[in-house]
Amino acid sequence: MGGDLKTKFLEVYSVLKSELLTDPAFEFTPDSREWVDRMLDYNVPGGKLNRGLSVIDSYKLLKGQELDDDEIFLSSALGWCIEWLQAYFLVLDDIMDGSHTRRGQPCWFRVPKVGMIAVNDGILLRNHIPRILKKHFRQKPYYVDLLDLFNEVEFQTACGQMIDLITTLVGEKDLSKYSLPIHRRIVQYKTAYYSFYLPVACALLMAGEDLEKHNNVKDVLIEMGTYFQVQDDYLDCFGAPEVIGKIGTDIEDFKCSWLVVKALELSNEAQKKFLHENYGKEDPASVAKVKELYNTLKLEDVFAEYESKSYEKLINSIEAHPSPAVQAVLKSFLGKIYKRQK
Amino acid sequence: MGGDLKTKFLEVYSVLKSELLTDPAFEFTPDSREWVDRMLDYNVPGGKLNRGLSVIDSYKLLKGQELDDDEIFLSSALGWCIEWLQAYFLVLDDIMDGSHTRRGQPCWFRVPKVGMIAVNDGILLRNHIPRILKKHFRQKPYYVDLLDLFNEVEFQTACGQMIDLITTLVGEKDLSKYSLPIHRRIVQYKTAYYSFYLPVACALLMAGEDLEKHNNVKDVLIEMGTYFQVQDDYLDCFGAPEVIGKIGTDIEDFKCSWLVVKALELSNEAQKKFLHENYGKEDPASVAKVKELYNTLKLEDVFAEYESKSYEKLINSIEAHPSPAVQAVLKSFLGKIYKRQK
Repeated sequence: MGGDLKTKFLEVYSVLKSELLTDPAFEFTPDSREWVDRMLDYNVPGGKLNRGLSVIDSYKLLKGQELDDDEIFLSSALGWCIEWLQAYFLVLDDIMDGSHTRRGQPCWFRVPKVGMIAVNDGILLRNHIPRILKKHFRQKPYYVDLLDLFNEVEFQTACGQMIDLITTLVGEKDLSKYSLPIHRRIVQYKTAYYSFYLPVACALLMAGEDLEKHNNVKDVLIEMGTYFQVQDDYLDCFGAPEVIGKIGTDIEDFKCSWLVVKALELSNEAQKKFLHENYGKEDPASVAKVKELYNTLKLEDVFAEYESKSYEKLINSIEAHPSPAVQAVLKSFLGKIYKRQK
Repeated sequence: MGGDLKTKFLEVYSVLKSELLTDPAFEFTPDSREWVDRMLDYNVPGGKLNRGLSVIDSYKLLKGQELDDDEIFLSSALGWCIEWLQAYFLVLDDIMDGSHTRRGQPCWFRVPKVGMIAVNDGILLRNHIPRILKKHFRQKPYYVDLLDLFNEVEFQTACGQMIDLITTLVGEKDLSKYSLPIHRRIVQYKTAYYSFYLPVACALLMAGEDLEKHNNVKDVLIEMGTYFQVQDDYLDCFGAPEVIGKIGTDIEDFKCSWLVVKALELSNEAQKKFLHENYGKEDPASVAKVKELYNTLKLEDVFAEYESKSYEKLINSIEAHPSPAVQAVLKSFLGKIYKRQK
C-alpha cells in the first residue's frame, strides 16, 4: 500500500465496502446492492475521520514501532467500524432532530426517494459492524472482547441520546431542567465513550491488553471527551464561523449547552428570568440578548479558566500512568484537542 | 417458580426488565429509568410470544426431559431476546410504514410525547439484547456463538426489510416489480430467519450443538417460515376477520403479497392489465375487483394445493433428519402452523 496514512485508510474503506456488497449471508438483488453502495458512500467516509484514524495512531504508539501491512489493515478496519457506528448515529439523529444538512450536503433522509427508508439504512450501517468484525477478527483471541466493547459503547451512546432527547424534547421548553450534572451525563454517554474511549480501547485489544485493567485510561478519556464537548459548545457561540465551518444555532435550538448551564449557575434571579425569556427563541434579538448576558457573565473567561484547569487535571492523570506507551497515546489525543479553534 | 409455562416466562420478563433498569453501564436519572420502564412494558410483552416460548419448548425437546429452574430461566431469557428483537423491528417498521395501530393500541411513536424519540427507543430495545446475553451467558462456552447468531439474523432481517422497502416504495407503484422470486426473498430474509430459525438455533446452542452442522435444520425452518408468511398473505384476504383479529388491507396497501404475485403469474394479458389498474387503490370498488379476479383465478384452490405440497415436502425433509429429538422440534413447529386459521 502506498501514499500517506489517510490514503491507506480510504483504501481499506473500499475493501470493506466491496466485502459487504458481496456478503454471502444475504442474496443481493442488483437494486439492493446499488442502494447499499450509494448509501455507504453518502454516509460513511465524508467526515473528518479523526476517530477512525486514531485507532491506527494509538495502536502504533502502543506497539512502539512501525506497523506492518496486516496491522495497518486490521487497525484501519477497527477504525472504520467506529466511523460506521458514527454514520449510523448521525443518520438516525438527523431524522430525530429534523435536521436539514450534514457535512455540507442534505441529510440522507432528505435525499429524494430515501425518506423513511433511512431508518432501515441506519440499522444496516449498524449491522455492518459485526459483519466486518466477524470477517476479519473471528479467529483473534480478543474477538469476543471486541464484540462486548462495541455492544457496551453503543448501549452507552444510545442511553446518552435518550437523556438528551428526554431533557430537550419532552414537556415544554423549560430551562430549569438544565444543570451541570445533566449536561455532564449527556456528554459523557452520548459523545465521550464512542469518540474517545472506543478508539483507544480497540487499540488496546489489538495490543493484547485486558480492558478490565485499564479503567483509569477509560476515566481519562471520558474526561477528555467531556472537555472536547464543552469546547464544542463554546465554539458554537464564540468560535469564528469561517473557522468552524458553520454558524452555531445552539441558542435558537434550546440546546443543553455548557454555556447556558454555566450561565444559569452564575446568574442572579433577574438574569435567570431574562435567560428563561430569551433562550430557545428564533428571533435574532433574543439570541443577541442571550449572548449579551453571556458577555456580562464573562463566560469567555470562565471557559478559559475551565480549559486550563481541565488541561492541568488531564496532564496530571496521564503522567500518573505507569506505561510510557499509554501516556503517549493519551498525550497524543490531548495534543490534538487542547486549545483547538475548530 | 409456579404456574404454567407462560406465567413463568412472564416472570422472567420482570427479572430481565429490572436488571436492565439498574444496569451499571449507565447512570439512570429517575426520568430516564421511568421512560425505559414504560417503553418496555408498552412494546415488548404484548404479542403472542410464540417466538419466545418456542425456545423453551425446543430446548426441552432437544434435552429429552424436563428442564430444571435454571434451564427454564436461561431458555426464557433467550426467548425474551427474540421478543426484544421483534419489538425493536416493529417499533421502527411502524415509523417507516406510517402505521397507526399495533397489537390493538396506537403505535409507540404515535403516543403523545414520544414521536421521533421512538427511533432511539428502537435502538435501545436492540441494545438490550447484548446486555441480557452478557449478564446471563458470558461464561457459557457458546456465548460467542450466541452473539454471532443474533448479529447474523438481525443483519438478514434488516436486509429483507431493505428489499421490501425498495421494492414497495421506491419509484411509483409498479406491479411489474413483483414476482415469486422477489416475494420469496423478502419473506425468507425479513421474517423466516428471526421467527423460525432463530428460536431453534438458540435452543441448539444451549444444547451444546454446533450450528455449522445443522444447515439442513436451517433450510427446513426457512422453508417453514416462508410457508407461514404465505399463509399470512392468504389469511389477510381470505381469513375471517373475527378470527384473525383484523381486517386485511394488503390490496389497498399495494403489498407484495403471495396472492398478487401468484395472480400475476396466472393472469392472461387482459387480467394483468386489470390488476395493474386496480391493485393498490383505496376505493372499495377497486379492492372488490381485485378479489373478484382472485376468485376467477381460483386462488383459494391454488393456495390449498400450495399448502399440501409444502406440508408434504416439509414432512419429508424432517423425517430425513437423523436425530429424533431434532425431528420432534421441527414437527412441533410445523404442527403449530399447518392449516392455521389465524
